[in-house]
Amino acid sequence: MNLKPTKPLSGFVELTPAQQRCFDENAAKMVDSLKTAGFGRLDLPTIERFEVLTDKDNFEDIETEMYVFEKGDTKMGLRYDGTIGLARFVAGHINDLTFPFRAYQFAKNYRGERPQKGRYREFYQMDLDILGQGDLSPDYDIEIITTMNDALTSIKDTIGNVYVRVGSRAVWNQAFAALGVVGEDKIRNTLIIIDKREKMPADEFAAALRDAAGADAANKIAAAFDNPKSLAGISSELDDALAQLEMVVQRAQAAGVDARLDLSIVRGHGYYTGVVFEYYFADSDIKTQIGGGGRYENLVSKFSKAKIVGVGAGFGPSRLLVPLIESGKLDLSKYERQADVAVLPMGAAQVDAALNAVRAIRAAGLVAVPFLDTNKKFKAMMEYADKIRARFAMIIGEDEAKAGLVALKDMTTGQQASFPVEQAIKKVKDS
Amino acid sequence: MNLKPTKPLSGFVELTPAQQRCFDENAAKMVDSLKTAGFGRLDLPTIERFEVLTDKDNFEDIETEMYVFEKGDTKMGLRYDGTIGLARFVAGHINDLTFPFRAYQFAKNYRGERPQKGRYREFYQMDLDILGQGDLSPDYDIEIITTMNDALTSIKDTIGNVYVRVGSRAVWNQAFAALGVVGEDKIRNTLIIIDKREKMPADEFAAALRDAAGADAANKIAAAFDNPKSLAGISSELDDALAQLEMVVQRAQAAGVDARLDLSIVRGHGYYTGVVFEYYFADSDIKTQIGGGGRYENLVSKFSKAKIVGVGAGFGPSRLLVPLIESGKLDLSKYERQADVAVLPMGAAQVDAALNAVRAIRAAGLVAVPFLDTNKKFKAMMEYADKIRARFAMIIGEDEAKAGLVALKDMTTGQQASFPVEQAIKKVKDS
Repeated sequence: MNLKPTKPLSGFVELTPAQQRCFDENAAKMVDSLKTAGFGRLDLPTIERFEVLTDKDNFEDIETEMYVFEKGDTKMGLRYDGTIGLARFVAGHINDLTFPFRAYQFAKNYRGERPQKGRYREFYQMDLDILGQGDLSPDYDIEIITTMNDALTSIKDTIGNVYVRVGSRAVWNQAFAALGVVGEDKIRNTLIIIDKREKMPADEFAAALRDAAGADAANKIAAAFDNPKSLAGISSELDDALAQLEMVVQRAQAAGVDARLDLSIVRGHGYYTGVVFEYYFADSDIKTQIGGGGRYENLVSKFSKAKIVGVGAGFGPSRLLVPLIESGKLDLSKYERQADVAVLPMGAAQVDAALNAVRAIRAAGLVAVPFLDTNKKFKAMMEYADKIRARFAMIIGEDEAKAGLVALKDMTTGQQASFPVEQAIKKVKDS
Repeated sequence: MNLKPTKPLSGFVELTPAQQRCFDENAAKMVDSLKTAGFGRLDLPTIERFEVLTDKDNFEDIETEMYVFEKGDTKMGLRYDGTIGLARFVAGHINDLTFPFRAYQFAKNYRGERPQKGRYREFYQMDLDILGQGDLSPDYDIEIITTMNDALTSIKDTIGNVYVRVGSRAVWNQAFAALGVVGEDKIRNTLIIIDKREKMPADEFAAALRDAAGADAANKIAAAFDNPKSLAGISSELDDALAQLEMVVQRAQAAGVDARLDLSIVRGHGYYTGVVFEYYFADSDIKTQIGGGGRYENLVSKFSKAKIVGVGAGFGPSRLLVPLIESGKLDLSKYERQADVAVLPMGAAQVDAALNAVRAIRAAGLVAVPFLDTNKKFKAMMEYADKIRARFAMIIGEDEAKAGLVALKDMTTGQQASFPVEQAIKKVKDS
């Protein structure tokens, strides 16, 4: 018989138990900071109707990357981000939700793009959004920026410091209007070029910007990257948008966020209308963004006539953590511990006593793992206790069991002594 | 423009935030009990190669229910249970893992079956397995049965009591051999009939069992459902298998599990070879099983020549909890609280003070949610604090802000008094 392949499909992550524990503990810290900020979890379907998933708003072409299939007469596909499901859900529950509505998602998403380093076909995405019905104060922009910062800072020990670059679509909308960059296509093309600024050589970027926006406008736009104030005084609407952006950056800084005003941040999505931002590592060779978000004026327009405005952010725990975990640069030793106590009955007659001890240890909130292959040699049992990195081995021999005792061995120091079970558990708990 | 549909696809679960909090908190309790039992999480891909997913071992026809699609030249599909991925993973990591290997999964699975009450096309499945290399003591059967019992008992307040019916494939294998039920097809067909016993009228079941096993064997098999001891003395191997089953049931009972020996439990999967078991509600109208598992002799045979034996269990948190949550029978009020403190600045000038207060409240580990639409009326702000079920409203007015004070209103009693922020936070924390 031919054996089936044991490797997962290319582009799919598979972690060992210790790596997984590292991922999960870091993810849990980030989730906790979202919960403390009053975001409730939405767990939306992974499969959506094809017509729901198609979205011409993206700057990139998502459709070729989508996993699409049919079941019965229905064409459907796998979610590739959190926004579309959120929009569908909110449109369907407008009368049940309390606005401003705060929600986070922590879910697997799928993009069948060519696998490359740090990019996965299946990946976790965290999304957080605050949605208003009709309107939503721009002060909520600070809430999203600081909450995402808190989430990333909660795993500072793992990923180091981060900073956030804050731009504004509102500033560009006003600047474009004043500089004669008008018409949907021209605006969109100019934004796409600005979004690519750091990926292009300087002269190529300058030429592309001139092509998209015209020579005069391109000069003024380019000057604003280094000196946003060069856009001041052109129109009062533009001055207002600039002031609003400055206020968001200052308030984020006041909240302890390393926020930097940067007009080259525009984000690759058509629906942003206000502040946009991207997070970056402060002390890493990795120069690509970690995640980001922004403000949008009409989330649910494809699903409902209601006006839902919001501000949201998204980032990828898989992209953030998996390359680091797999690089060997992280010390994973603390994630290798599988038990507090390995319980080792020395023979079949001690199994009942061992199972009782296991139950008592777990009831005390400690992790207990028994080794029940009592036909194995003592050496194999101790090796198991060592391999699962148990802090203690609880050895239950014939004599000890008769006397109601267990031998407790500290796996770090090698010290061993006999106690009644309850006393041994207390010793583990206090250690 | 035509609006897109807001409902999820038929058979897909979508919970409101309060319902989701109920689901998540119950799921977390079950996961915690698996962790305390020393099971580490495996988070395996949702998408597998089609050839990995196909499996003739199932009594039911899975293939027509699978979600299958192609990307490039690769045919693939969505996982429908936890076993196949586990087998693939273990076969690929035999040299990296410590055996007995203890793993749990808590993941979404997919079956495109006709949606019906309590059955979903996307559903969570919890799986726990203990795997041995070469051999594994049958005493580990108790570990799985008690751990699954602990997981279900951890949410007793939600689902009530459970009991477990324990049968044995080993008993039937020996009984069939002694009673002349031989040949792969005859054995398989007889097991399939036994598995359906409770879904068939008694006379229909008796006839089907006669057809599958022959009249003599059918009589002896039927007698054993009510009186397992009627199989005693037929062969020494059968006696051993019966004694082993009795021991597992007794030890599970000794561990506080409501375990009942029941030979009509055989489980609908070809690969079981020893003890098999199913959990049921003790105090509910729902008579169908909650989940179950059993012992298997060769998990990875399709992937590797290594011999991996194990015992595992699986159950569906979606099937277990979602119908209950949606039935309205559960009191969801405690899951409706979205914040400890709603922070309400009375005007734009108080927003900075409000954001500072929010930060301080969250730093104290409490959930703080600000209401920043300061153009709204005071009544709307208080309504928001009430709707998100905040325990307290922290009201920041102009005079209070000047004096460095906040007004703290207890949303339950309506009592209100002014304090410095830190003192107000302490009051919330102590309440």
